[in-house]
Amino acid sequence: MENKIAILGSGAMGTACASILKENKQNVIIYGINDQELDDLKKGYNSKYFQNKKLYEFEVTKNLEEAIKEANYILIAIPTKFIPDVFFDLVKKINNKTIIINVSKGFWPNSTDFIHTKMDKIIKENPNIEGIVSLIGPSFAIDIINKNITLINSVSKDIQLAKKVKKLFSNEWFGVIINNDVIGAEVGSTFKNVIAIASGMAEGLGYSTNTQAALLTIGLKEMQKYSLSLGARPETIYELSGLGDLILTGLSDKSRNYCFGKSFFNKKIDENAITIEGLKALEYIYAQNKDNNKIKLPLINGLYKIVYNKENPKEIIKGLMKNLITD
Amino acid sequence: MENKIAILGSGAMGTACASILKENKQNVIIYGINDQELDDLKKGYNSKYFQNKKLYEFEVTKNLEEAIKEANYILIAIPTKFIPDVFFDLVKKINNKTIIINVSKGFWPNSTDFIHTKMDKIIKENPNIEGIVSLIGPSFAIDIINKNITLINSVSKDIQLAKKVKKLFSNEWFGVIINNDVIGAEVGSTFKNVIAIASGMAEGLGYSTNTQAALLTIGLKEMQKYSLSLGARPETIYELSGLGDLILTGLSDKSRNYCFGKSFFNKKIDENAITIEGLKALEYIYAQNKDNNKIKLPLINGLYKIVYNKENPKEIIKGLMKNLITD
Repeated sequence: MENKIAILGSGAMGTACASILKENKQNVIIYGINDQELDDLKKGYNSKYFQNKKLYEFEVTKNLEEAIKEANYILIAIPTKFIPDVFFDLVKKINNKTIIINVSKGFWPNSTDFIHTKMDKIIKENPNIEGIVSLIGPSFAIDIINKNITLINSVSKDIQLAKKVKKLFSNEWFGVIINNDVIGAEVGSTFKNVIAIASGMAEGLGYSTNTQAALLTIGLKEMQKYSLSLGARPETIYELSGLGDLILTGLSDKSRNYCFGKSFFNKKIDENAITIEGLKALEYIYAQNKDNNKIKLPLINGLYKIVYNKENPKEIIKGLMKNLITD
Repeated sequence: MENKIAILGSGAMGTACASILKENKQNVIIYGINDQELDDLKKGYNSKYFQNKKLYEFEVTKNLEEAIKEANYILIAIPTKFIPDVFFDLVKKINNKTIIINVSKGFWPNSTDFIHTKMDKIIKENPNIEGIVSLIGPSFAIDIINKNITLINSVSKDIQLAKKVKKLFSNEWFGVIINNDVIGAEVGSTFKNVIAIASGMAEGLGYSTNTQAALLTIGLKEMQKYSLSLGARPETIYELSGLGDLILTGLSDKSRNYCFGKSFFNKKIDENAITIEGLKALEYIYAQNKDNNKIKLPLINGLYKIVYNKENPKEIIKGLMKNLITD
């Protein structure tokens, strides 16, 4: 059976997901708001992100109703800050059986709910929406476009829905593994951005691979401690959505969070920092943890002090080391 | 109390360990067999590995008896292939209370015992030897020489000995965390070399970061499955000795295993391959597993077929993907 999948968002990840689905012979339509980008996609390009790489020629629309009409899947790939407006509107408009696919990670804007969790709450208003499935894992859009082998998790509390989405996306080079620990996956994909900032800072401060390997290992343990406190399963942190995504983000100049950390000591936080997901995550996790204070998160606390209190990183590191080797 | 620590081996890791201990105000003597290297170390250099980097001026000797006389710690940092000869000789010669520190990983030559495990068996012959402690974790020698922050595990079934070694080595930039799951640490530090070969191959075949992040995640799971079958604790694979060491080895041109994998499809296996630890590990783990066949190790099997049966990597990858997404 051919499905109709509406992709909301004409950015890098929306285009990458649309490309996988087209390759898998699905019926795809991309909804966007930028005329030039849509025009580009119609001709089989997305030059803003993928230069002159030839893609499929996509069906596109600026009309949300048209995009979602009779769609049995709607994939949301828009910048996080626009999600609330679009999502509330969308939930009102859906009038046939639909599964929503989310590819955004982190916290819902101005909320301490993770995006998937918040979506799960909102869709209760509309019984046509069968559920939320998130695609989370190590997946740079450009690598997907180049058909590099990629593995990700299909995450939902409803395993049947996760399986449907898995089936939709899986092919010879794009592998999907289901996982029903939503909180575990959300923590992994959010917290990893914070560690990526720290790892970038390590490079910025002149530290080496030894240091970054140690930082990622210790960081994953702290991630796990935090995720357990929210009710996640311990092993989820070491899935594609946690460890896998961290390997991608925590060591690569292709990651904005990593680059932010790397250049942190050379310049002040500028306007662009607003779009650094890891910074928001750092702030929220720090605030959450400060309030209930159930668990110790020394990396989060140390990083917070460096970023927001301008404390000396060398002193923070000294404190972390002391803490680590005391037992 | 000042300790006397004999370092056997004047290579990169022996020199790095000697440097940490000197910095920690310990009494260190380096035993070696190469006049020029020893002469170099005496003057405060190890130009073969660290060019003109100024080190401490070390006490050196070509006389094993002199080196170990009254030493309360003996650190073995010689190439794996020479370990049996030196070790049997050493065990006979030790005549005061001594803790042996091992920094080698992988299988004991011509044996399916891991090095630490084998040493543990051999020292039973000499009651003067209190036990074996291994230092395992993400630690390129050059990064240690440059005093980059490094964290490693001090591994022994005897926690008290692990703590003593931890105390000996710990300082502001070198952090040691104890771990008494010897098998878990040995599997991690051995198996990681196999995955590093696979990760290098992925780069060699033109795959991207997505692919390597996926491979490392899946690889760690297979590592865990294997280590559990040998009686290790599940979490040890995600310690510095497993995950940490894999991050270092599995993504870096500084690793011989990675480089071997990267260039595998461009050249035939040459004489140098003999020193590729990951190849030996691949062979042993494959043979072990083929015999008892208790657990499925698809990555090991696939890699074995590529390396030893010259099977087409693209076909192997296709099979692995199929296997992964079937559930």
